[in-house]
Amino acid sequence: MSVLLEFSMFPTDKGESVSSYVSKVIDMIRESGVSYKLTAMGTIIETETLLEALQVVQKAYNVLEPDSTRVYSSLKIDIRKTKSDRLEGKVSSVEEKIGKIKS
Amino acid sequence: MSVLLEFSMFPTDKGESVSSYVSKVIDMIRESGVSYKLTAMGTIIETETLLEALQVVQKAYNVLEPDSTRVYSSLKIDIRKTKSDRLEGKVSSVEEKIGKIKS
Amino acid sequence: MSVLLEFSMFPTDKGESVSSYVSKVIDMIRESGVSYKLTAMGTIIETETLLEALQVVQKAYNVLEPDSTRVYSSLKIDIRKTKSDRLEGKVSSVEEKIGKIKS
Amino acid sequence: MSVLLEFSMFPTDKGESVSSYVSKVIDMIRESGVSYKLTAMGTIIETETLLEALQVVQKAYNVLEPDSTRVYSSLKIDIRKTKSDRLEGKVSSVEEKIGKIKS
Repeated sequence: MSVLLEFSMFPTDKGESVSSYVSKVIDMIRESGVSYKLTAMGTIIETETLLEALQVVQKAYNVLEPDSTRVYSSLKIDIRKTKSDRLEGKVSSVEEKIGKIKS
Repeated sequence: MSVLLEFSMFPTDKGESVSSYVSKVIDMIRESGVSYKLTAMGTIIETETLLEALQVVQKAYNVLEPDSTRVYSSLKIDIRKTKSDRLEGKVSSVEEKIGKIKS
Repeated sequence: MSVLLEFSMFPTDKGESVSSYVSKVIDMIRESGVSYKLTAMGTIIETETLLEALQVVQKAYNVLEPDSTRVYSSLKIDIRKTKSDRLEGKVSSVEEKIGKIKS
Repeated sequence: MSVLLEFSMFPTDKGESVSSYVSKVIDMIRESGVSYKLTAMGTIIETETLLEALQVVQKAYNVLEPDSTRVYSSLKIDIRKTKSDRLEGKVSSVEEKIGKIKS
C-alpha cells in the first residue's frame, strides 16, 4: 500500500512571509524519518498507512500551535493499495509516457 | 478552539457515479455525532481538536477501504483558537457584512 | 453540462481576520448573477462552462488585488457533462441515499 | 509578480489508472512553454499573471474533455506581487532556513 499526502500548512496571523514557520514544520518532517519531497507549493510525504500520514499532519500543527492563533491547511491524499514507492515512481511513469508520445 | 475541516473522499476505481460510496461515508459521519454540513462539493465538520477531525478522515477511509483499490481525497482545514460555533457563524458573519455593503 | 467550482481566496498579509475582504469577493459573486452557495469554508459556484467559472476566480482576485501583496486560493472543480442543477441536486441525492440506508 | 498554481486534473470515469490521460495534459503544458514542475501529486506552473495560469487550466480540460464525461480537479494558487522565480526559489529558501536551524 502507498499513501501519498501533499499538504501546505501555515499561520495566517503572521503577515506575508511565513517561511520561518514553514521551515520548522519541514524540519520536524525531516527528523521524523518519513519519505518526503519539498515543492514550491507544499510537502509530499509517502507512508504505508493513512494513520501515519495523518499523524504527520497533527505533528505539523503541534509545531505551529504555540505561536499562532489561526492556522490554515490544504491537503490532497492519494491512497493506492497495490503500489509502492510512488514519490519518485509517479513522476517517472508520466515522464516515460510523455517520451513515448513524443517519439 | 474551533477546527473546521472540509473534505471530499471518493474511490477512483468505481466509474463516474460514486454517490453510493459517498453516502456510506456521510452516514458514518452522521452516526459519529460530530457537527457537520453537507455541500455540493464535500462535507464540512467542526470539532474542538484537530485530532478529532483527523479521526473522522481515518474513519471515512475505513468505510471505503473494503471496496476500493484507489481512494482520492481533497481537504482544507481552518483552525482558530479564539472562536467556536463557526459552522453556522462564518456564513452569517459574511452575510451580515454583505448586507452592510449593500445598505 | 454542469461545472461546480468550490473555492476560498484570501489575502495572507492582513492578519488573522479577513472577513471584510472575503465579503467583497462574495458581493462581486452575488452581483455577477452566477448561481452560488456560501459555506463555512468557501463559496461554491455552478456554471455551464469551465471558462465562466474561471472568469469568476479571476474577478475575485481583481477584487482583492488593490489591497493585497499576497493572495492564497484553494479550489476544487467537478465537471460533469450529462448533469445540471447540481448545486442543490448533489446534496439532495446523498440525503436521499442516507434515508434509504436508514430505513 | 509571481503566480504559482499547483493542480491535478483527471477523469473519474476511466478506472483506477489514469496516467495515460494525465500524460496528455503534461504534454500540452510542456509544449505551451510555461515554467512547470511535475510532482507525485500534480503539476506546479509559474506565470506572471493569474490569467495565464487559468488559461493553462482551461487547456488542460480541453485535452481531457473529448474522452471524459466527468473530470475532477484540485488546485492551489499563491500570488505574490513583489517576487519572481519562485518555482525553484521557494524550495531553496526553506532548505536554507532548515540548514540554519540545524547548524
